Amino acid sequence: MLQDSEIQRMRGFGLQFQQGAAGYRFSIDPFLLCGFCRVAAAEMAVDLGTGVGVIPLLLTARYGVQKCVGIEIQPQAAALARRNCLLNHLERKVSIVEGDLRRHRELFAPQSFDIVVTNPPYRTRETGKTAPDPERAAARHELAGTLDDFIAAAAFLLKNGGRFHIVYLAERLTDLLTTLRQKNIEPKRLRMVHSRLGDAARLILVEGRRSGSPGLQVEAPLYVYEGNGYSAEVLACYGEMKG
Amino acid sequence: MLQDSEIQRMRGFGLQFQQGAAGYRFSIDPFLLCGFCRVAAAEMAVDLGTGVGVIPLLLTARYGVQKCVGIEIQPQAAALARRNCLLNHLERKVSIVEGDLRRHRELFAPQSFDIVVTNPPYRTRETGKTAPDPERAAARHELAGTLDDFIAAAAFLLKNGGRFHIVYLAERLTDLLTTLRQKNIEPKRLRMVHSRLGDAARLILVEGRRSGSPGLQVEAPLYVYEGNGYSAEVLACYGEMKG
Repeated sequence: MLQDSEIQRMRGFGLQFQQGAAGYRFSIDPFLLCGFCRVAAAEMAVDLGTGVGVIPLLLTARYGVQKCVGIEIQPQAAALARRNCLLNHLERKVSIVEGDLRRHRELFAPQSFDIVVTNPPYRTRETGKTAPDPERAAARHELAGTLDDFIAAAAFLLKNGGRFHIVYLAERLTDLLTTLRQKNIEPKRLRMVHSRLGDAARLILVEGRRSGSPGLQVEAPLYVYEGNGYSAEVLACYGEMKG
Repeated sequence: MLQDSEIQRMRGFGLQFQQGAAGYRFSIDPFLLCGFCRVAAAEMAVDLGTGVGVIPLLLTARYGVQKCVGIEIQPQAAALARRNCLLNHLERKVSIVEGDLRRHRELFAPQSFDIVVTNPPYRTRETGKTAPDPERAAARHELAGTLDDFIAAAAFLLKNGGRFHIVYLAERLTDLLTTLRQKNIEPKRLRMVHSRLGDAARLILVEGRRSGSPGLQVEAPLYVYEGNGYSAEVLACYGEMKG
């Protein structure tokens, strides 16, 4: 698998990523999520279902996070995530744990983290076409954990008052908000992601707080495209400037 | 009370409304809600907490609804709503029922309506300043029914597959979506209302379907102001044109 992979160099944040040519491929979504996150350098963060490690590396490069863990169930993706840590010389700040987030109790003590971040699979088993490649399939469909599993893990891993950040499908907003509240992670900030002005929303960005009080801030929407290219805000998510 | 009231003439939709000078005053919100509604002329509609009857009259004038009921607990508001029906010669299409929506079982048979519409009080008893005027207080705070009460009434009154439309505070989105799902009214369409491009959302417009399947359409946001005045979309909610 590794010999097939290519290295993607990103000028922004001085990062480069290697990903399998055939397996999981990262999209714009983790970049939007990291742009939405509010994380302080001293906070302990964990990314649930980290894939090739894009989110932990971004949090480290962008916010100066000193300690970030990525949990990944797929051995090839976890191996690539570790290679990406080495490639970026961030192996002392980012640790990759190969494991099943549904067995979170065996991986970490309760309330070990200030911040949980996740870009989970969006589709239930019943909806959409399952990708033929098993790695892609698990990244897209809830084969290795449902939304409920991801949020249960977050509720277990977060300190009281700790913050949860997720990017998810707009059409599943009700599933997300009801599950968060049920697991005592109160939604505090929400941002809709629309392709262009006038379009329906495709994605949602949500921040929740463990044991937080009710009261949601719905921020101005994020528009991905402006004119012929990405909007200035999206370019900033990649660490780049417009123009 | 009635001698204090003034008549507000609206060019759009050819309607005029009388409201108490001291009591409940209607805002832009019922107009935005009626703009968001999808109602066919043949559908039976009911407005929960109708105040002076703005929503039933708008549905009748705008969509040609032939039969609409407004339920209102406050005697003065209900009396004004009835006067407004007469003033607009719509008393054969709009009926005002003075009653408590918490006692919906005594007012109507189950599944009597195709459409439920509501602009309920936004604030719980514990939050914000209570208005000194009792009519205004009940319109703003949950004194005569909580969100739960309004949605329970809607669930009782709606036919299976019937549609629920609500305007509500953006900060209470989680309360709204969780309560709707709990009462078997599945959220199907959501639209955020922002004052201007770049502002946080103040209001949400939601359509739910009784016994609907999960899957939410998040529409392009509604911006209230453009330049020095209302946006074209908001003017259309008042039945007026830009310029």
